Amino acid sequence: MKVKLATNILEANDRIAAENMKIFRDARVFVINVMSGPGAGKTSLLERTIQELSGKIRIAVIEGDIAGSDDALRIEKLNTPVVQINTGGGCHLDANMIREVLEDFPLKDLDLLIIENVGNLVCPAEFNLGEDMKIMLLSLAEGHDKPLKYPLMFQESSALVLNKIDLLPYTNADIGKIKKDSLSLNPKLKIFEVSCKTGEGIKEWADWLKSLVK
Amino acid sequence: MKVKLATNILEANDRIAAENMKIFRDARVFVINVMSGPGAGKTSLLERTIQELSGKIRIAVIEGDIAGSDDALRIEKLNTPVVQINTGGGCHLDANMIREVLEDFPLKDLDLLIIENVGNLVCPAEFNLGEDMKIMLLSLAEGHDKPLKYPLMFQESSALVLNKIDLLPYTNADIGKIKKDSLSLNPKLKIFEVSCKTGEGIKEWADWLKSLVK
Repeated sequence: MKVKLATNILEANDRIAAENMKIFRDARVFVINVMSGPGAGKTSLLERTIQELSGKIRIAVIEGDIAGSDDALRIEKLNTPVVQINTGGGCHLDANMIREVLEDFPLKDLDLLIIENVGNLVCPAEFNLGEDMKIMLLSLAEGHDKPLKYPLMFQESSALVLNKIDLLPYTNADIGKIKKDSLSLNPKLKIFEVSCKTGEGIKEWADWLKSLVK
Repeated sequence: MKVKLATNILEANDRIAAENMKIFRDARVFVINVMSGPGAGKTSLLERTIQELSGKIRIAVIEGDIAGSDDALRIEKLNTPVVQINTGGGCHLDANMIREVLEDFPLKDLDLLIIENVGNLVCPAEFNLGEDMKIMLLSLAEGHDKPLKYPLMFQESSALVLNKIDLLPYTNADIGKIKKDSLSLNPKLKIFEVSCKTGEGIKEWADWLKSLVK
């Protein structure tokens, strides 16, 4: 019974996601859905990415959180169009939530729309939003056992951004194991090592993203 | 419609949770439900807690993960009875999953049953398992904005274990803000600062837990 309900919800979501995708394609805007567990550094990555690509491509952001608008305020400071979605307890964004805020953006004047999902390594991976690509972050501080424990997120993502590599000397995390296990789940996964604190690796990531957009 | 489904699922869960609680009370076993985002260090805290309380109280563990049994293997090495539940994609444990494994434990011979939930700062807080108390971990590396962004978890928990404080010199995290915001959401929240890596703060936490059990 529970399984049936879940299937129906996912089917309805996929239908709206397909409609969103058509809207994005018609407007020629590239859309990424950025996912991670809480505190892996999604908003910090967005800040770094926006700064790196400033003046090169036109970016807007949708912020997803259960509550609060701290993240949207951080993006607004960078003079970037942003809308905050509060899920009110919901553990992921769904396609309909995205649909409802699209009219707030001048889609045809954008090159890249970044959707920051709710911090959760599980549920967001099941709900397509109509994006071109899913991107996931993992903080080195979360440990090297995450790929095998949260496999769907790694399988669904096109790129893994491994953040907080500045903490490497102070943790027991094994980057080699993270990469090996991630690639065993998803051989096509593109992996970037970055530190949003020091800026290390940001240029490589941003250059790659820019190459997809234009 | 979606809201209605969610309510029904939660109501059914609460009914089974109440039955679990009666089973636990009859067996005189104290039960805690340990929750956190991915990689905050739940299993490491369990290892430290078991070592600290070894010979003092009788402990068993239920490990919840989407996939894999790494965590259960770590607990088994400490000669502690453990059962691994794999949710197969599900983002939280529910009361029925707990019910189904209870027969695998000699409940009457236990003082403390520790349930380690799936790593997720959102959904586990909505599903009671029949526990006496919810405990949450937050890794300092997750940042100080988490209480206001994931309020339910902080409101539902009786204690917050703030882990990885050994990383304090290497992060921008503000412990004062975490405590202030956590207490504004839940004035009765008991807060412990620990490092499962160095062992700092573990004795205070374990002594408090022991005082509840016996």
